[in-house]
Amino acid sequence: MSMRTLTRADRAQLAMVFEVSAYPKPGNVDRCHDYETTRLEHFLASAILARPALEAAERGGDGPGALIHRAVECTSGHRGGNTHFGAFILLIPLIMGGDIPGAAKVVANTSVDDAVEFYRAFGKTEVRVIQGHELDVHDPSSIVEIRSRGMTLYDLMLYSAPRDMVAREWINGFEMTRRGADLIHAAGCGQQAVVEAFLGLLALEPDTFIVKKHGPEVAWKTMEKAREVREGLRDLQAFDQECIDRGINPGSIADIIIAALYIALGEGWEWD
Amino acid sequence: MSMRTLTRADRAQLAMVFEVSAYPKPGNVDRCHDYETTRLEHFLASAILARPALEAAERGGDGPGALIHRAVECTSGHRGGNTHFGAFILLIPLIMGGDIPGAAKVVANTSVDDAVEFYRAFGKTEVRVIQGHELDVHDPSSIVEIRSRGMTLYDLMLYSAPRDMVAREWINGFEMTRRGADLIHAAGCGQQAVVEAFLGLLALEPDTFIVKKHGPEVAWKTMEKAREVREGLRDLQAFDQECIDRGINPGSIADIIIAALYIALGEGWEWD
Repeated sequence: MSMRTLTRADRAQLAMVFEVSAYPKPGNVDRCHDYETTRLEHFLASAILARPALEAAERGGDGPGALIHRAVECTSGHRGGNTHFGAFILLIPLIMGGDIPGAAKVVANTSVDDAVEFYRAFGKTEVRVIQGHELDVHDPSSIVEIRSRGMTLYDLMLYSAPRDMVAREWINGFEMTRRGADLIHAAGCGQQAVVEAFLGLLALEPDTFIVKKHGPEVAWKTMEKAREVREGLRDLQAFDQECIDRGINPGSIADIIIAALYIALGEGWEWD
Repeated sequence: MSMRTLTRADRAQLAMVFEVSAYPKPGNVDRCHDYETTRLEHFLASAILARPALEAAERGGDGPGALIHRAVECTSGHRGGNTHFGAFILLIPLIMGGDIPGAAKVVANTSVDDAVEFYRAFGKTEVRVIQGHELDVHDPSSIVEIRSRGMTLYDLMLYSAPRDMVAREWINGFEMTRRGADLIHAAGCGQQAVVEAFLGLLALEPDTFIVKKHGPEVAWKTMEKAREVREGLRDLQAFDQECIDRGINPGSIADIIIAALYIALGEGWEWD
């Protein structure tokens, strides 16, 4: 496909821009939809500005916690809020390990320092947390607590996994990432494959970002509607508009689709 | 604006993605319009894949001809045809020189080897040339002729300048690039500034890419219509649609807007 071989960092960046530009992707920013404060160009700039952290992950030499922290620092200079934090949680181990089996080894070997670095990164984003459920990222004593409990970054993800499908990928061997990549391959080449894979994952499990923002009922309803779209019982564009109007954005599925695109590109998926 | 300082390569990449995503940009690919064979994602991928050539330009150590050649090689693996060839002709000396005065020195000091390398790059693109007017890029004797005439890359641009506004930038000290950057600054922050600057340049001079494709009359008419849009006498969206329907894409103005965005970002323009 390409005259120059794609590096892992290239694949990660292409995955980020292909995900955000694919249309129509129900509820999320895409080439035809912005949210008032987070727009297409915030995602595109974030994909470009992440480069040094992605290259550092490819070179190795730093832990996943520090690399996720670095990716957040590289990309948090704009006014669009959190763009790719969830994606970095998946991409950094995938780049470090190369593929899913490699990434599974990376996440299994994280340290307490990784957890502390991750918490520092977390504090610099505007990621939605469930009050009372999570350690308070703005409380410096949280870091003391992580150290005193001896929690690794894997432990933190295990702790979050029941409520966060991105964290769950660390625990279950990147299962939805794998499914997403399979859906992309099955859908053929080009942008349409991204939309189909997105709908496929959305129909499979309730998006935990929607759960945090709107509660479980809305997330389950959204999943059901995605299933109806896939079965031809519901119009995709109307579903997209309804999600946008109600601020229902499946942000965690989007993160997993980015990881899935990274994998699919590495397996020879033809994006154009 | 950014927590990490933008490198010149960053600015060039941001310029490329901001240009292509700005909407509505009469006749060109933008976030809401593709052409059948050249789509938004081709431009986004091209911006990402150009990175090694842009970084090499920032490091120095190679001539502008070889660097333009490298940029074309990095980005010609997709099926979208020529995406950023004209932009690279401007960005490479701008990155090498840092700013417009620096770039003017770079272009004034090009060599015959630069011209040969440029010709090799040219042969790898699908850039529209006027039959009979230009040296035939597919004819290996052209390179022999460049050498025997002792033509530098600057000389080649001088030769093309009357018929090509991108080449003209090399000769006149990046005049339209400067105007474009001034228009961007005057229009304020955000994507709307890109559209306004684009219209401003389109209203200023006939796009030579349109001249080559449709003849001078269509190019002048397009310029006049852009002027009417700016004066509130013509609807922008309707003008955009008319251009798209007729395949009138001001590709050279787009290249110059990318260069202008590179300059504006270096002068502190706030893109969001």
